[in-house]
Amino acid sequence: MKVAVVGASGYTGLELLRILLRHPRVELVAATSEQRAGRSVGEAFPSLAGLMDLVFEAADPASLADRADACFTCLPHAASAPTVAALRKGGAAVVDLSADFRLRDPAAYAAAYGEHGAPDLFGRAAYGLPELHRDRIRGADFVAAPGCYPTSVLLPLTPFLREGLVEPAVHVDARSGVSGAGRKLAEDYLLAELADNVTAYSVGGGHRHVPEMEEQAGLAAGGEVRIAFVPHLLPLIRGIATTVFARPLGPLSGADARAVLERAYAEEPFVRVLPEGATPSLASVRGSNFCDVQAVVDERTGSLVLLAALDNLVKGASGQAVQCLNLMQGWPETEGLLEAPLVP
Amino acid sequence: MKVAVVGASGYTGLELLRILLRHPRVELVAATSEQRAGRSVGEAFPSLAGLMDLVFEAADPASLADRADACFTCLPHAASAPTVAALRKGGAAVVDLSADFRLRDPAAYAAAYGEHGAPDLFGRAAYGLPELHRDRIRGADFVAAPGCYPTSVLLPLTPFLREGLVEPAVHVDARSGVSGAGRKLAEDYLLAELADNVTAYSVGGGHRHVPEMEEQAGLAAGGEVRIAFVPHLLPLIRGIATTVFARPLGPLSGADARAVLERAYAEEPFVRVLPEGATPSLASVRGSNFCDVQAVVDERTGSLVLLAALDNLVKGASGQAVQCLNLMQGWPETEGLLEAPLVP
Amino acid sequence: MKVAVVGASGYTGLELLRILLRHPRVELVAATSEQRAGRSVGEAFPSLAGLMDLVFEAADPASLADRADACFTCLPHAASAPTVAALRKGGAAVVDLSADFRLRDPAAYAAAYGEHGAPDLFGRAAYGLPELHRDRIRGADFVAAPGCYPTSVLLPLTPFLREGLVEPAVHVDARSGVSGAGRKLAEDYLLAELADNVTAYSVGGGHRHVPEMEEQAGLAAGGEVRIAFVPHLLPLIRGIATTVFARPLGPLSGADARAVLERAYAEEPFVRVLPEGATPSLASVRGSNFCDVQAVVDERTGSLVLLAALDNLVKGASGQAVQCLNLMQGWPETEGLLEAPLVP
Amino acid sequence: MKVAVVGASGYTGLELLRILLRHPRVELVAATSEQRAGRSVGEAFPSLAGLMDLVFEAADPASLADRADACFTCLPHAASAPTVAALRKGGAAVVDLSADFRLRDPAAYAAAYGEHGAPDLFGRAAYGLPELHRDRIRGADFVAAPGCYPTSVLLPLTPFLREGLVEPAVHVDARSGVSGAGRKLAEDYLLAELADNVTAYSVGGGHRHVPEMEEQAGLAAGGEVRIAFVPHLLPLIRGIATTVFARPLGPLSGADARAVLERAYAEEPFVRVLPEGATPSLASVRGSNFCDVQAVVDERTGSLVLLAALDNLVKGASGQAVQCLNLMQGWPETEGLLEAPLVP
Repeated sequence: MKVAVVGASGYTGLELLRILLRHPRVELVAATSEQRAGRSVGEAFPSLAGLMDLVFEAADPASLADRADACFTCLPHAASAPTVAALRKGGAAVVDLSADFRLRDPAAYAAAYGEHGAPDLFGRAAYGLPELHRDRIRGADFVAAPGCYPTSVLLPLTPFLREGLVEPAVHVDARSGVSGAGRKLAEDYLLAELADNVTAYSVGGGHRHVPEMEEQAGLAAGGEVRIAFVPHLLPLIRGIATTVFARPLGPLSGADARAVLERAYAEEPFVRVLPEGATPSLASVRGSNFCDVQAVVDERTGSLVLLAALDNLVKGASGQAVQCLNLMQGWPETEGLLEAPLVP
Repeated sequence: MKVAVVGASGYTGLELLRILLRHPRVELVAATSEQRAGRSVGEAFPSLAGLMDLVFEAADPASLADRADACFTCLPHAASAPTVAALRKGGAAVVDLSADFRLRDPAAYAAAYGEHGAPDLFGRAAYGLPELHRDRIRGADFVAAPGCYPTSVLLPLTPFLREGLVEPAVHVDARSGVSGAGRKLAEDYLLAELADNVTAYSVGGGHRHVPEMEEQAGLAAGGEVRIAFVPHLLPLIRGIATTVFARPLGPLSGADARAVLERAYAEEPFVRVLPEGATPSLASVRGSNFCDVQAVVDERTGSLVLLAALDNLVKGASGQAVQCLNLMQGWPETEGLLEAPLVP
Repeated sequence: MKVAVVGASGYTGLELLRILLRHPRVELVAATSEQRAGRSVGEAFPSLAGLMDLVFEAADPASLADRADACFTCLPHAASAPTVAALRKGGAAVVDLSADFRLRDPAAYAAAYGEHGAPDLFGRAAYGLPELHRDRIRGADFVAAPGCYPTSVLLPLTPFLREGLVEPAVHVDARSGVSGAGRKLAEDYLLAELADNVTAYSVGGGHRHVPEMEEQAGLAAGGEVRIAFVPHLLPLIRGIATTVFARPLGPLSGADARAVLERAYAEEPFVRVLPEGATPSLASVRGSNFCDVQAVVDERTGSLVLLAALDNLVKGASGQAVQCLNLMQGWPETEGLLEAPLVP
Repeated sequence: MKVAVVGASGYTGLELLRILLRHPRVELVAATSEQRAGRSVGEAFPSLAGLMDLVFEAADPASLADRADACFTCLPHAASAPTVAALRKGGAAVVDLSADFRLRDPAAYAAAYGEHGAPDLFGRAAYGLPELHRDRIRGADFVAAPGCYPTSVLLPLTPFLREGLVEPAVHVDARSGVSGAGRKLAEDYLLAELADNVTAYSVGGGHRHVPEMEEQAGLAAGGEVRIAFVPHLLPLIRGIATTVFARPLGPLSGADARAVLERAYAEEPFVRVLPEGATPSLASVRGSNFCDVQAVVDERTGSLVLLAALDNLVKGASGQAVQCLNLMQGWPETEGLLEAPLVP
């Protein structure tokens, strides 16, 4: 199958190239980058030298839709929507990694991101979290890959919401490696500012991923869910580690809590419920499409503590996007994705 | 004033040497280390070469009490108590940095640490958090320096408990640099295991610092307080970053919340309430005795979010111990402690 | 083909598991670990959970030789030799990753490592650097995988020695991530000691990899070569970055120097000669079997400066070992090894 | 004494504020920053909140020269010269931390940096390496603080050049933390690009610090010295670790080599010659004005290996600048500078 990556020189785009290179059913036919158009991929990114012959090109959606059966779009929000619209019009299947098609509520989109670039398509993509929406993604031709933080919150939390076991207001403290911000030139992302450092940001409810989490959590709960979300920047490249504190609505033992996760994920290839006593760690998922989860009941407060770890560029972005493509095509869901994490 | 550091070759001991070197009222007369007895400090720790002439000696409490007016004890819990007892018997003032004298409830000590090594002295030390117990520390001759995590939780939280503004059950997610574990030879602390990694530990209520937090929080609240505490290990050396989620008992705006912290800490030299919109960062307190705090009310859940950052070896241990000594002696509380953080 | 990894719980052993998992011609039939015998691989190393069903076993060479066609041995030097001997006796092909069979000169071995554990086999393995000894490795059934530092020195240097272009005495400054030391419990490898730090070690000629470099460099030069080698420990997990300073014996321009490397490596899949002006970086080879090299002539001294970067656990150990297996079996040399580096 | 820091919001400027805060003979009267003019120092840099009352101002040399007896200038090269000229004209003593006044040869300046901004003053500053030029700095009113790399090369190397013990062409491999590049917005300095990474740059002789090293080395040698210099960027904030390879002109034992350093630096407060067998480490000098050095003779090549470690922002910049001010004023040379390194 012929595939193109639009916005291929950013971190999620490069990660798609890395993953697709080893995907046995995919042929990469185009990689676009406005800034690097005309340069070979291997010359612009020496890590890829000797592995592929592509030359970056400027994005021309009509031509891409012509040459590729499916396109991954890795553009900033707002910029993504019109490109996606053009690709869809040209007949290409699309997995969009921007925030433009993740939400269902246009007001929530407008509040978080401003005007939408393709309002006709808004709400038309399947939300690409296969563990929650597999049936909707299977066979679809337009999927919105979830945000990295939402994936790390929804995977451990939704089973409890679905079973009505916890109050619909939770506290979340999350930490992300800096690749989540992309290759953005800002002082905050300089090594000299960020190394040996940890800082919270967007505290108080302002992070743009919150409406996405709340919307999907609400779908699982069958009612409104409120999330107090405190994200932090970590002095490392890849990984999200998330803690969710929830209050059980009735008696809930640690064994009960673990059983909820095990029921939900026993058959899932990419969600690993850790053995009792183990806690998720970023190292154990580095470079892989796994999300490791754990549930513990705090003995002092009775609160439920949920922990999750994933690689924000893989299960939090490009790996999950490929998992969606596999489903869309009816291929084995794990195709190209069962790589072992890079440990140590 | 003549001062000795007992257990001076561990991280908190070395940090005391670093701080005391610049303290204008203190003369360092002894530094003990069983492992390094007989070696000069500068030869064992090249960072200190050229700065002091001390030779490590084995700990002989009677001799130390003879030669020093005050002793800092930096020994593991259980091992500390008998040494402290002997030093006190010899007439030395003591600031103990172990966990042996922080608690008031012997049952809580026994449950967390086992048998106590000097039961007669249990409960006799002032709890060395000057911002909470200044009057008790001033003029005291026996002080227990608080744990690093408790300091980071109690400083932002107790003002709200004291004013009866929040429910007495809170969620805490905290992250510490690895120096908090001391120079311990365990696989978990190897750079190859820990770099680029973040992992929670002691989840569910088992961390030994929790009884200390709950006891002190309870004193502030005038009643029982329960804390769900989730600590993480960070891939860096120094610093604790803590998030406290609490539920207000009545209407509480962000401005109200900040005012509570400002009332509590306006006159405090080492607790900096950040301006609105700013969040504490480890870099801004590195190597210093500051604890930076912030309060935000989450717009979605109404929960109060408290953030704190401190250097676990300074305000979380050795700097705070020196702050206590200053109070014990009636010296200016900031003596030797107003160093600028190491930024960048 | 059935393959076993002996000493599979150390870093090079785990890296072999990671690589062999994606190798299409290999079936992993056994992984040994004395310490973890009886535990499943996925339980002992959560990163591998869900990816393989092996249970660690204690090493029994006779049984392993029976069940596996080829064995990778990842044991400490001295311990490796008798195991290798038993595996060979049992008829298994062996790629040994220890230092026991890399040297040809028994006196050099004795001086660096002490008594040899299988003197009859000494000198009988092919030296597993395919770019230098491909013909000898192809079809062999016993190969010694090179050391990580020697690989990083020999790949850029030997083309110049072979052509007689430089003096046979060179200066080498090299830097390695800490995974090169294995999962060794020593204070020097704790994150709190090593983070933000760089230190040279074994300065003056004492590093055990030097005889190996000098022996192989001598073979290329057709005469004795002397190497002043200064290794450093870097505060990161993976990667070796090496600088070689050599004095040309005659006029040598930068273009000449680059041409020497290009002639040597034009057809090599894993040695990438960078374009003029680019320098090797650890990030560009992370997790991959590439060694990136560059040659520059210093305009002030006329010295030749050679730079190399590789991942010490892949091209410096386990990836190179698999490259050797591919050659031994007559498979495509790149089988299982053309993974893209993990960037960022 | 009243002192101003011009360009105080860059890394060397901030480091001067940190150091001067604890200097007992200095009163900080002004700190300039074009970008942050009008903001209080503590608000712009939270690490300094509560420690000083200064407000950043735009640089007005005439006014500064009026209010301050001495000025530190921390501006980019070329921009610095006219400001220095105006400050000197106004009567202020100046320690300039830019490259504008380090060289003696105008052609070398032009080749490395382009047109000079104050040619009348070129060559008029004392070169501020006290260990080499103490007499010239003492009592001076215009000093150029050396570059960070040159300091790390000249301190270990010049004693051997002065005694005529080594060939006047040496190989230098050096590594610097990223703060050496300042707070510069470039992709190369993003944590996501630089973490876990090491790369050489300016290979071949093009680094701007080379003419400075060669000029000063030549003064020590009494003749031309050529340096092949290969700098690397390290994934950490502070520190330079340098290796110099030199060829002895006659027999030179390791003991001889160490004796050369000991003779040169026995009385120096900030250069520590390490005991035999020890190697300099960045951690041991972090945040301090020390430069640790070691000399070893390589047993295989007979080459002399010199190692040095320093903190690029202290002994490599701002600390050394204050050491110069102390000399200029006839104060004790160590005033304000005998801080213990931040270990761990």
